[in-house]
Amino acid sequence: MNHTAVPDEHDRTAIERLVQALETAWNAGDGVAFGATMTDNADFVTIRAEHFIGRDVIAAGHAEIFRTVFLGSTIRDTVDTARLLTPDLALVHVRSALDVPAGPLAGRHDALFSGELVRETKKWVIDAFHNTLAPRAPR
Amino acid sequence: MNHTAVPDEHDRTAIERLVQALETAWNAGDGVAFGATMTDNADFVTIRAEHFIGRDVIAAGHAEIFRTVFLGSTIRDTVDTARLLTPDLALVHVRSALDVPAGPLAGRHDALFSGELVRETKKWVIDAFHNTLAPRAPR
Repeated sequence: MNHTAVPDEHDRTAIERLVQALETAWNAGDGVAFGATMTDNADFVTIRAEHFIGRDVIAAGHAEIFRTVFLGSTIRDTVDTARLLTPDLALVHVRSALDVPAGPLAGRHDALFSGELVRETKKWVIDAFHNTLAPRAPR
Repeated sequence: MNHTAVPDEHDRTAIERLVQALETAWNAGDGVAFGATMTDNADFVTIRAEHFIGRDVIAAGHAEIFRTVFLGSTIRDTVDTARLLTPDLALVHVRSALDVPAGPLAGRHDALFSGELVRETKKWVIDAFHNTLAPRAPR
């Protein structure tokens, strides 16, 4: 078993749309919209190796960071790789460029997340998410 | 679709055994044995947000760090959560406690990895791995 099928154009577009929704939610500072990209029981591992479970917990946690350390920040996501584990499950790797205007995390950050996605009736959603920051270049 | 089935005792034991094999390979500093826990085309995201693809690349990369920054280090892995995405695909979250005896990374580190596992004929193997270090407590 290889689990390495390439998504067709239709699935690729839908996956890109999901990642775009995640980006849009971040840039709007909208925790509820961020959570809406996730399954009910999604697993979410943060850049600090914290593990949150469930859409509502993920939404609330993001609402909090959008009001505090990531207030006013913007992100740009780029799908790096996508493969199908089954026709209804996908694995993606997405690079994020994050700009934080102020506070302890002010500056530019690069991150890479893995996402395990599931196909629901009309769209793909995120069932597991794991994010890691790249080390910052010396100033 | 929830993809949240709990593995039965047989699968849980097999998954624990796989994680144990990963730990044993690390503690032996054995890159080939580390790679042997992976599928041919496994995705591997490091604590530095580097993305390596393929068992041989992962094995070679680990052989290198076992000779250098992680020389003589020991790891202890604990399966935190495990669920079945399908009968032949599992998602796990594993906490690692890493002790590095010397060098730039000397000291104790805590990490959390997500693993997407696939069932092969006789065992489970890792198809995708993503690791993040927890921030170190202030000294």
